[in-house]
Amino acid sequence: MSSARKLYTHDGLFRMHRAGHLKSPTLAYETWGELNAARDNAVLIFSGLSPSAHAASSEDDPSAGWWEDMIGSGRPIDSDKYFVICVNSLGSCFGSTGPASINPATGERYRLSFPVLTLEDVAESAWLVVRYLGIDCLHTVVGCSMGGMSGLAYCVRHAGEVRRFISMSSATRSLPFGIAVRSLQREMIRSDPLWKKGNYDPGAPPVSGQRLARKLGMITYRSAEEWKQRFGRERATDPARTEDRFVAEFSVESYLENHANKFSGAFDANSYLYLSHASDLFDLAEYGGSLSAGFKKLKLDRALVIGVETDILFPIEQQRELAKGISTVCTDTQLVELDCIRGHDSFLVEMDAFRPLVCDFFESCCD
Amino acid sequence: MSSARKLYTHDGLFRMHRAGHLKSPTLAYETWGELNAARDNAVLIFSGLSPSAHAASSEDDPSAGWWEDMIGSGRPIDSDKYFVICVNSLGSCFGSTGPASINPATGERYRLSFPVLTLEDVAESAWLVVRYLGIDCLHTVVGCSMGGMSGLAYCVRHAGEVRRFISMSSATRSLPFGIAVRSLQREMIRSDPLWKKGNYDPGAPPVSGQRLARKLGMITYRSAEEWKQRFGRERATDPARTEDRFVAEFSVESYLENHANKFSGAFDANSYLYLSHASDLFDLAEYGGSLSAGFKKLKLDRALVIGVETDILFPIEQQRELAKGISTVCTDTQLVELDCIRGHDSFLVEMDAFRPLVCDFFESCCD
Repeated sequence: MSSARKLYTHDGLFRMHRAGHLKSPTLAYETWGELNAARDNAVLIFSGLSPSAHAASSEDDPSAGWWEDMIGSGRPIDSDKYFVICVNSLGSCFGSTGPASINPATGERYRLSFPVLTLEDVAESAWLVVRYLGIDCLHTVVGCSMGGMSGLAYCVRHAGEVRRFISMSSATRSLPFGIAVRSLQREMIRSDPLWKKGNYDPGAPPVSGQRLARKLGMITYRSAEEWKQRFGRERATDPARTEDRFVAEFSVESYLENHANKFSGAFDANSYLYLSHASDLFDLAEYGGSLSAGFKKLKLDRALVIGVETDILFPIEQQRELAKGISTVCTDTQLVELDCIRGHDSFLVEMDAFRPLVCDFFESCCD
Repeated sequence: MSSARKLYTHDGLFRMHRAGHLKSPTLAYETWGELNAARDNAVLIFSGLSPSAHAASSEDDPSAGWWEDMIGSGRPIDSDKYFVICVNSLGSCFGSTGPASINPATGERYRLSFPVLTLEDVAESAWLVVRYLGIDCLHTVVGCSMGGMSGLAYCVRHAGEVRRFISMSSATRSLPFGIAVRSLQREMIRSDPLWKKGNYDPGAPPVSGQRLARKLGMITYRSAEEWKQRFGRERATDPARTEDRFVAEFSVESYLENHANKFSGAFDANSYLYLSHASDLFDLAEYGGSLSAGFKKLKLDRALVIGVETDILFPIEQQRELAKGISTVCTDTQLVELDCIRGHDSFLVEMDAFRPLVCDFFESCCD
């Protein structure tokens, strides 16, 4: 465990949004910077499906975080000015309670006895950490991808406790294309005989299914145009390609293979299933029966919605819908449509495009 | 076997484009209409990856074919005027020799001893059938999807023996996005323990992997916009959904499930691997070292390239590239960009858009 990771354990039952509860769940989180005396400089980051709370390096953990270029001293989300918090999503496997955690009631891992997870649960559990840290109102909530939906859930459910919201490559809800992709990723894992209906040996997880799911992820996280420019029909140079007549002849196949190899084993398979499913379930329209009713529950001073034209998972139309909806209740809402070619992943890899937008946002905050 | 299916067995060795050979391969084909006295009214259809030669019904086999609306008496490809031929691709499993066929040299199924298959082999084997039928020059070659590349291979390799070419939702070569998708589909099948490195029991094929591959296929054959309009976030009504907490909550998931159920078992898994790989391998630029050199080898009187704006597998840019390239050697080349929302599959399901184009093409043929 990294020495920057802090743990908060909720004393008592945590009621899940759909049904069931968790007894005394733990949330892992990291922070950067200091909470000011007015307690009004806190920025909460909601991650995508797979990252831990280690969004950036710190003195306690100098290893690079998943959003290293975005958070820290002198960075766009400047820890010299802001108290930045990132919570590992409930249901994940990097310190927060999830399906791989021990159920205190049984002494066994939860596995599939973990209750249905929703992004509302991710938001509410983060809210517990925020309250624990003594913060009544957040300066800004920032959410990327799935985290944008978790952030939206937070803003709707705690209207008045968030002043600003930044959504990156996210949406008001998942549409059928994204649902189909995620459902298939889940089926890939569940089809792996090693998954054993969730009861896999922690030392022998369903890596084959996870690798397939990761590869499909990469196909939807990037863009056809990027790959055309980057790989074209270039052949792989890896000699491993010769051992199999059906694969890794092309560079793009080696690239997917390398990504799958990096990912495997690092993420609990059941956690993945729960969080992926939670992404499909979220729908802002559940707040009042329609999207417009859902938006009306927001109370924000300012919002920034950033989307990428080549994103096929959270397409640009959904960014426009989100920005338009927020603008009905928050006049200071800005939509930025980026023409980055790296698709959904751009917020992680096209930092030259994203950094200035986030910089400008925080620099122009006049309080 | 359908009674409309005819078989042609090549007497002797068939040399494969890459390496190796097949001894006396058989090609299954069907025909509609009659060859005229001048032998100049023959139209050859190249199918996508999965169909058989049964493109349309006939007296001998009244069951609907995979392109029923396109071929037949009074249909756009009119069997009252043309002699229409559809050959089951070499390497497939509907009567033509493929990995599931018995290797006469061993008395065993070829399985992975089948030589590397290319679309050149698909084209050349179809050419054998055309020659066998006594046709020196085809009136038109029509190819859809993978079949468009097979057709292009035919036209390049037998320049002067094809007068006209219709390409639908195809390309000059596969790009990395399509390669990645197909490579992953192949890996899904190969990851199924029942695949057994190609030595599966014909009675217990790798259905789980084939189902996953089919679902990924459907995700890339249709479009996000179609599914948004068709399914939105509608929940599935199938009671089967309740048995599994991670799947089939949404209608789009049931839809994929239904498609996977229909497909499974109908297609030999090794055939799929070979044909899918062949799609990745084809590259018009191999004819002369560049696409422009490849196009220069064509000798056509007329060409029609039809593409669909929502196609993510063979995107519209590739239709433009193809039409532009053909037009450098064939002034009578037309490009039609359709705004159908059903993506790559449109040529099978948006018949109201495709039929008139094919009608016009053939009706305006003045010979």
